[in-house]
Amino acid sequence: MPPPPPPPPGVPPARYAYLGPEGTFTEQALRSLPAAARAELVPCATVTLALDAVRSGEADGAVVPIENSVEGSVPVTLDELATGEPLMITREMTVPIAFSLLARPGVRPEDVKVVATHPHAAAQTRRWVALNLPYTEVVHAPSTAAAAAAVADPESTWDAAIAAPLAAEHYRLAVLAAGIGDNPDAVTRFVLVSRPGLPAPRSGRDKTSLVAFMRDDHPGALLEILEQLTMRGVNMTRIESRPTGAALGNYCFSIDCEGHVDDARVGEALMGLRRVCADVRFLGSYERHDGVAPTVRPGTSDVEFNDAAAWLARLRAGD
Amino acid sequence: MPPPPPPPPGVPPARYAYLGPEGTFTEQALRSLPAAARAELVPCATVTLALDAVRSGEADGAVVPIENSVEGSVPVTLDELATGEPLMITREMTVPIAFSLLARPGVRPEDVKVVATHPHAAAQTRRWVALNLPYTEVVHAPSTAAAAAAVADPESTWDAAIAAPLAAEHYRLAVLAAGIGDNPDAVTRFVLVSRPGLPAPRSGRDKTSLVAFMRDDHPGALLEILEQLTMRGVNMTRIESRPTGAALGNYCFSIDCEGHVDDARVGEALMGLRRVCADVRFLGSYERHDGVAPTVRPGTSDVEFNDAAAWLARLRAGD
Amino acid sequence: MPPPPPPPPGVPPARYAYLGPEGTFTEQALRSLPAAARAELVPCATVTLALDAVRSGEADGAVVPIENSVEGSVPVTLDELATGEPLMITREMTVPIAFSLLARPGVRPEDVKVVATHPHAAAQTRRWVALNLPYTEVVHAPSTAAAAAAVADPESTWDAAIAAPLAAEHYRLAVLAAGIGDNPDAVTRFVLVSRPGLPAPRSGRDKTSLVAFMRDDHPGALLEILEQLTMRGVNMTRIESRPTGAALGNYCFSIDCEGHVDDARVGEALMGLRRVCADVRFLGSYERHDGVAPTVRPGTSDVEFNDAAAWLARLRAGD
Amino acid sequence: MPPPPPPPPGVPPARYAYLGPEGTFTEQALRSLPAAARAELVPCATVTLALDAVRSGEADGAVVPIENSVEGSVPVTLDELATGEPLMITREMTVPIAFSLLARPGVRPEDVKVVATHPHAAAQTRRWVALNLPYTEVVHAPSTAAAAAAVADPESTWDAAIAAPLAAEHYRLAVLAAGIGDNPDAVTRFVLVSRPGLPAPRSGRDKTSLVAFMRDDHPGALLEILEQLTMRGVNMTRIESRPTGAALGNYCFSIDCEGHVDDARVGEALMGLRRVCADVRFLGSYERHDGVAPTVRPGTSDVEFNDAAAWLARLRAGD
Repeated sequence: MPPPPPPPPGVPPARYAYLGPEGTFTEQALRSLPAAARAELVPCATVTLALDAVRSGEADGAVVPIENSVEGSVPVTLDELATGEPLMITREMTVPIAFSLLARPGVRPEDVKVVATHPHAAAQTRRWVALNLPYTEVVHAPSTAAAAAAVADPESTWDAAIAAPLAAEHYRLAVLAAGIGDNPDAVTRFVLVSRPGLPAPRSGRDKTSLVAFMRDDHPGALLEILEQLTMRGVNMTRIESRPTGAALGNYCFSIDCEGHVDDARVGEALMGLRRVCADVRFLGSYERHDGVAPTVRPGTSDVEFNDAAAWLARLRAGD
Repeated sequence: MPPPPPPPPGVPPARYAYLGPEGTFTEQALRSLPAAARAELVPCATVTLALDAVRSGEADGAVVPIENSVEGSVPVTLDELATGEPLMITREMTVPIAFSLLARPGVRPEDVKVVATHPHAAAQTRRWVALNLPYTEVVHAPSTAAAAAAVADPESTWDAAIAAPLAAEHYRLAVLAAGIGDNPDAVTRFVLVSRPGLPAPRSGRDKTSLVAFMRDDHPGALLEILEQLTMRGVNMTRIESRPTGAALGNYCFSIDCEGHVDDARVGEALMGLRRVCADVRFLGSYERHDGVAPTVRPGTSDVEFNDAAAWLARLRAGD
Repeated sequence: MPPPPPPPPGVPPARYAYLGPEGTFTEQALRSLPAAARAELVPCATVTLALDAVRSGEADGAVVPIENSVEGSVPVTLDELATGEPLMITREMTVPIAFSLLARPGVRPEDVKVVATHPHAAAQTRRWVALNLPYTEVVHAPSTAAAAAAVADPESTWDAAIAAPLAAEHYRLAVLAAGIGDNPDAVTRFVLVSRPGLPAPRSGRDKTSLVAFMRDDHPGALLEILEQLTMRGVNMTRIESRPTGAALGNYCFSIDCEGHVDDARVGEALMGLRRVCADVRFLGSYERHDGVAPTVRPGTSDVEFNDAAAWLARLRAGD
Repeated sequence: MPPPPPPPPGVPPARYAYLGPEGTFTEQALRSLPAAARAELVPCATVTLALDAVRSGEADGAVVPIENSVEGSVPVTLDELATGEPLMITREMTVPIAFSLLARPGVRPEDVKVVATHPHAAAQTRRWVALNLPYTEVVHAPSTAAAAAAVADPESTWDAAIAAPLAAEHYRLAVLAAGIGDNPDAVTRFVLVSRPGLPAPRSGRDKTSLVAFMRDDHPGALLEILEQLTMRGVNMTRIESRPTGAALGNYCFSIDCEGHVDDARVGEALMGLRRVCADVRFLGSYERHDGVAPTVRPGTSDVEFNDAAAWLARLRAGD
């Protein structure tokens, strides 16, 4: 892909916030976007701060992690998107999660008594650590990059960090071991979030994200929500229940489904959800990272929807 | 209700076909229509002939029985409406089914050795006949009126007829007993059928009739059809499976549901059926004979449909 | 198939009632049963009389028509099985419906001015008659055999009958034309009915018949009934709504489904129906006339049911 | 409630592991159990270690947090219960989540430049901190108690901790502010976990927990799972999708539902899940913390299940 053309003279470059610090997998995800090449990239301490930078207009977009193939969804991202000033997902991308054991130059593997990392990374390297560093204590840091940054400090009591390969360069650390994740296929999915506007154009390989708030807690409420989708042939690819914070047992559902808001079946399903739910928050339609086209069941294509609408119009007009 | 005004000079009166002969419950149903007062009423030998008179333009409308509270639906009417040149139901009416035992003047109850009637009427007076005419043979005639007409012939070998009260006048027969039906609440439902056109206007107490032809015989096909209705909050008031004639086990479904084709939820359900069925034949929307308003579940009113459609339009436009 | 052995000395032969008169398709269906070879066959004037002969013990079984591939179900049979003293279906068989035009010897086709037959037969030969006997009047008789019997009377005003081929022999009539049905694949399905008892043994190619009475008229009641079946992977092969006679809109459902009452999935579905319906009448499990084995969806075989039951027992016992 | 009697002489006291360190809300939850009064309580550094202590037999039970009314489920607990050597939940209890701001004696509120706490606690006190400590940096610790322990160290660079009130006593810290949680109704739900065995006896106010692994990723799989429950009138009170770790989009469902494994409807639903899922892990039936009795829909009581089972047995036996 050729680099994007430079912005016209006088137009300031775009600013993208991301979950920092520098050297995280999130930065790696952001850098995979062509638009990032000429943009200003702003690391933020938390997902909330990155998204608030978009809400306030300080940033044009933000990249944050939303789901990990091993650890599951990232609750703070789901909750931030579900509440507060609305935002819209315009793009998703995945980054393979490869962990390295990093230390200050000169530190030998046998010197590592304390290793720091984020709890998710600790969970994903548990087996490797148990086999290779059986006597090492694992302590938690707010992010893998924070662990690397701390380890880079010569006065640190931490001997090594488990972090993204990118962190080695950023913090000038030595790589004691690479590819130490227990699951070599682990990936994290990230989303590019911007202020609400026109959804990304329909590519034919799209996904739609939304949050459905149940009208009340009647037993069949979730079933009713699912039926609004399945009945129109709209497949879900992810569903997460999230507490609304009001009380134990009070949930909303964070849902990804196949197709684009401009697809007739997705549109009818969204309208159905809007009618049976207390609230529906549309989070955007965007091209899938894996380019998989949606399954279109017989009777659910746009052509069939349009044919049926034309037929109904004829019936109503008596033609 | 005052009589309808006379048609303008030079306009021929309307012609209504009905299932004859004269003196049937069907004539009684037709006469309950204000429009029948000045129209020409044409008895037809069969439901098929009455409906064909409408199809060919010989008649402006036809009244035929469609359902009896004791005997069930009238298959020939369902089948005639489901196949052939399309027709539309514009009105329904019910007639209480009261049977009388009729004979030529001078015949005494104890003289009745053979009584003729239509098989449906025989079924609905079985208990009375068993108690009151235990030694009488019951023979079948093509209609109750045909039985009465035959009995009126002095050379008939039939002594009496079980028929509608109206038949006594038509055929100058004496009423040996009245109200002899086993179920005093029995009613028959009739429909006024015309050529397809603008549906009857929405009254708020409407019913919609249709025939759904299953796309194939997969096990869940009927469930899928029902879900198209229930999912949109459209209640069925009648469903009949009818063989399509192709093979045993090959059915279509004759359905009445609450609401009018102009109701948003009914429209969306019809479009859904159109997409999942091999074919859907719309048979009309018309005011219910009993004036019962449809149940409107939360989330299925026109207001909610319109709100959801406006919301979707905003999402798609990025507003 | 060899003929069945003679009954032991002193045991009276079985008696089978059937919808007569002699020469009907029903007799043909009954004669297809090996057991009929040595039995006494008793024609009855109506389905009701044939079934009442079983109820009273006068007959050991009765053969009656239940469904026609062109005309649909036989309402009187469905209603008789749904109400009154319970009966059980133990066998089904089909007879191809071939119609012949029969007349007294010497009558020529061009002499036929009036032809008599049962209304169902008239419907199934309508096209042939319109093409070949355009000026002939068709009158209705209580059965095709009754039409043939009447035509055999030299004083009859009817010139010919449309009836089963078997009727030609019975009534010594000449065959003016054979195979005059409009649909050459038309078949009628008959059932052998006996007093309730042990269901026919499981053959692996079985069907189960039942009648479900809705608990009340709430909109989703039919959907709820269907779900009890589909949820357990039990396919329906026939469903008929029948009025209960109480009021318009008050229905029961006459259902055939794949499988045997001894199949675990059918048993669980029956129990589910029993719990959600006002009443369920089991009408028997019996081998299908076409020998088609049921579709068994993953998770619905007896092996899987038994495994799940054993698992649950272990959970409950804490093993 | 009187204290439990002392164990018989010679019987060692029970050992309960819990998510430590001392002073956490988890210890508070454990101490709410009467059985804890005479037991040995063993703090563990992680949920995994606490549960492994039960698996290995080192502990008789373990108390771990499973769900927070604000932050949602505790993923590590759900995942540990869903995989590895099976365990069983025998009890649940909730603890109101009240946060205090703790510091070494002598530290004044205006001295607090850096405050440490667990990320969940940081999220739940965000508003209070923004208003009352606007210039304070919030850093993350592995647990609220770890934050308190660290703050207690006079050499710590952290000035204060946000932690449970219990931590003040344990670590001899001063309470600078109490009740600083943003949501005064926040509670955390904890479970007591033991090795698999006989479920807790049925109390009539029970909950059942399970994990359902989808057989494959077909679109309707989740709907199929929900139907197994709703169809039998079993209400869900919690459902969480959790990645199985195999690939993005590959989920299992962690479910709580009303009722006890000994309830007929729950048993039939569990068997249904067992048949349609790749695997079902039963996690126990136990009394609800809130003592709410399950909703029992018509047709789903044990009496109705037993009646239906007896009826089916009679049908099969031909009685």
